[in-house]
Amino acid sequence: LNLILLDASEVDSDGRASLDGRRARHLVTVLRVKPGDTVRAGILDGPIGVARVDQVNTATVCLRCAFEGTPSRPAVDLLLALPRPKVLRRLWAQLAALGVGHVILTNAERVERNYFDTHLLDPGVYGPLLIEGLEQARDTRVPRVSIHRRFRVLVEDDLDRLASGSRRIVADPSESTSIASRVRGPGERVLLAVGPEGGWNPFELELLASHGFERAGIGPRPLRSDTACIALVALVHDALRRWA
Amino acid sequence: LNLILLDASEVDSDGRASLDGRRARHLVTVLRVKPGDTVRAGILDGPIGVARVDQVNTATVCLRCAFEGTPSRPAVDLLLALPRPKVLRRLWAQLAALGVGHVILTNAERVERNYFDTHLLDPGVYGPLLIEGLEQARDTRVPRVSIHRRFRVLVEDDLDRLASGSRRIVADPSESTSIASRVRGPGERVLLAVGPEGGWNPFELELLASHGFERAGIGPRPLRSDTACIALVALVHDALRRWA
Repeated sequence: LNLILLDASEVDSDGRASLDGRRARHLVTVLRVKPGDTVRAGILDGPIGVARVDQVNTATVCLRCAFEGTPSRPAVDLLLALPRPKVLRRLWAQLAALGVGHVILTNAERVERNYFDTHLLDPGVYGPLLIEGLEQARDTRVPRVSIHRRFRVLVEDDLDRLASGSRRIVADPSESTSIASRVRGPGERVLLAVGPEGGWNPFELELLASHGFERAGIGPRPLRSDTACIALVALVHDALRRWA
Repeated sequence: LNLILLDASEVDSDGRASLDGRRARHLVTVLRVKPGDTVRAGILDGPIGVARVDQVNTATVCLRCAFEGTPSRPAVDLLLALPRPKVLRRLWAQLAALGVGHVILTNAERVERNYFDTHLLDPGVYGPLLIEGLEQARDTRVPRVSIHRRFRVLVEDDLDRLASGSRRIVADPSESTSIASRVRGPGERVLLAVGPEGGWNPFELELLASHGFERAGIGPRPLRSDTACIALVALVHDALRRWA
């Protein structure tokens, strides 16, 4: 844990919070905090700052927090064809750690229908995994998640509302244009589309192209969805930093 | 499996190979091959090409291979402070899939000593994981792996031999210079150093700097070793492609 994340309801108006459970155990047994120590703390979807340890009991740690600014929402959103559950499980924390504003999961021809039955699409399951990623990367901004079983309806009707004004890029292993050359200005948001491991079908690619998605590639090697997403999201962030 | 990988000893002088076990099961139950079908095949550390299915029996598949060129060795080598076993387990296949020529694992102050006791440093354990990554990414080039318990000896005495003539880059979350701007010409090999999750200590950073490693960063977010390695290796490959 590089950041202790608190819900706004856990902190009183003086910045005091009393923790038990997982976070208290981590403070006591891993970080071995003593009264007077300081740790980084943040409020979920809120500001980030420093917390002084006031008291340490066997199962409870009392903190006094002083918050500063609120991190900005990551400028990358991900439109991802739902990967198999084993891969999705690995992805949640890593996407939150890299910084994704909105994870838009969708169907595609080469997504198996039963992938939608996984408990990994349950907010009670993926929520803690997202928080694990934020605790790792010292961010408070919980990625929004939405699940869209109808790809065409998503692209034609919902995307303008979900990611309005974003630069749209679709990853394509056969494309030699780089991610960086598709990101053209300061202050852009990028909506990055990543297909299933077997690729989008021609209809899906055509639909994305007709809705403003430009192709970009990171070479011809077919990658597992999690490897591809991490590489691509990192490349988009790197391209955006050059304009920052 | 996007590629059936064979050991040179499994293929006769006419290109015939008879498979059983895992690869035969995959051909029969997942790809559902029939005689006359073709699949991509390659020889470990050798050429890649196409195999025609000659016979399919219950547990055996007979192939007739025609090989073409041999893939070039990936131009990125990774000097990595040994991560915890859980993270290392996830990394092997992904590094092979992204393309790493040589994985050089080393000690550092913030590497726990017991990490070196893991069976994941046993070639019998990591070998199949590397092959899984090559089968995914359609490559035949098995990453070389070496393990160096003494960081200083590695950097001072061994590195010139292990990675001679490479551009040397060390990832540093506090550095704003991009990976791309550290890769300066066509035909370069890059040796990328990635520290432990707690970072290199000042002595280690100084030793790397005095042996030609230039700092580059992908932003201040602290990432898990596997996420960081995947992002960084992908960025180096992307930077090299611009010069290709």
